[in-house]
Amino acid sequence: MQVYDDEYFMRKALDEAEKAFNRGEIPVGVVVVIEDRIIARGHNLTETLNDVTAHAEMQAITAASDFLGGKYLTNCKMYVTLEPCQMCAGALYWSQISNLIFAANDQQRGYRKTGVHLHPKTKVISGVLAEEASALLKRFFIEKRNLN
Amino acid sequence: MQVYDDEYFMRKALDEAEKAFNRGEIPVGVVVVIEDRIIARGHNLTETLNDVTAHAEMQAITAASDFLGGKYLTNCKMYVTLEPCQMCAGALYWSQISNLIFAANDQQRGYRKTGVHLHPKTKVISGVLAEEASALLKRFFIEKRNLN
Repeated sequence: MQVYDDEYFMRKALDEAEKAFNRGEIPVGVVVVIEDRIIARGHNLTETLNDVTAHAEMQAITAASDFLGGKYLTNCKMYVTLEPCQMCAGALYWSQISNLIFAANDQQRGYRKTGVHLHPKTKVISGVLAEEASALLKRFFIEKRNLN
Repeated sequence: MQVYDDEYFMRKALDEAEKAFNRGEIPVGVVVVIEDRIIARGHNLTETLNDVTAHAEMQAITAASDFLGGKYLTNCKMYVTLEPCQMCAGALYWSQISNLIFAANDQQRGYRKTGVHLHPKTKVISGVLAEEASALLKRFFIEKRNLN
């Protein structure tokens, strides 16, 4: 029997991150979930679209809002493979998302090092499948370095 | 003779803010300028698009990048009628924009109250046509209150 736990959905986010990897994008992936149902997916497309705003989370917020027909994600959980940056955390603030679950920490660009506020309603869990997410990121940067 | 100074371009941003006002959106407008030429315009569309990411600045960053065919706005000036929020400031960080000029302060949601970092290369000027921008925002919220 399939258990729809945080690891299950983070694996789906990792599948999205793999798609980014295969396009030569920094591999970050995301899914947005309501009541165990995925309503939005996204992966980083900043290089493909030439657009710094095309982070996985931003696309998924737009897609989830489109699905719901409303701009607030108050009953949604976001699973993302890397700690959001200040832009994405700022967008999550506006969305009033109920849960943010992320895998790997981003020591350099993660929102927690800045003073960015998530919405007070947002509960945060970190570290779910962090090793897998970090390994994918490391593999990306090693391959990129070897190509240059 | 037309002088292409900060007030000139902020008036263009205010024209965009008026468009938002006329759509029932919180009136914030923006233009992006390279060498005295406007390459992107935007106004807040969060209600129209049901999307918290549809702030004027975010749309203008995407449009300017599209115009330039590159994701960095290193030679661009952004004129915006309200101090950017943490999401938009986070996006501006990634864009490495050279200049940010804004009109009204946002005491509640402006990026300066949070710990958000702009890019070290970004120079900031505030207060250009601040009274006009604030008056438009006040008019919007008064009309909205009277309608409800």
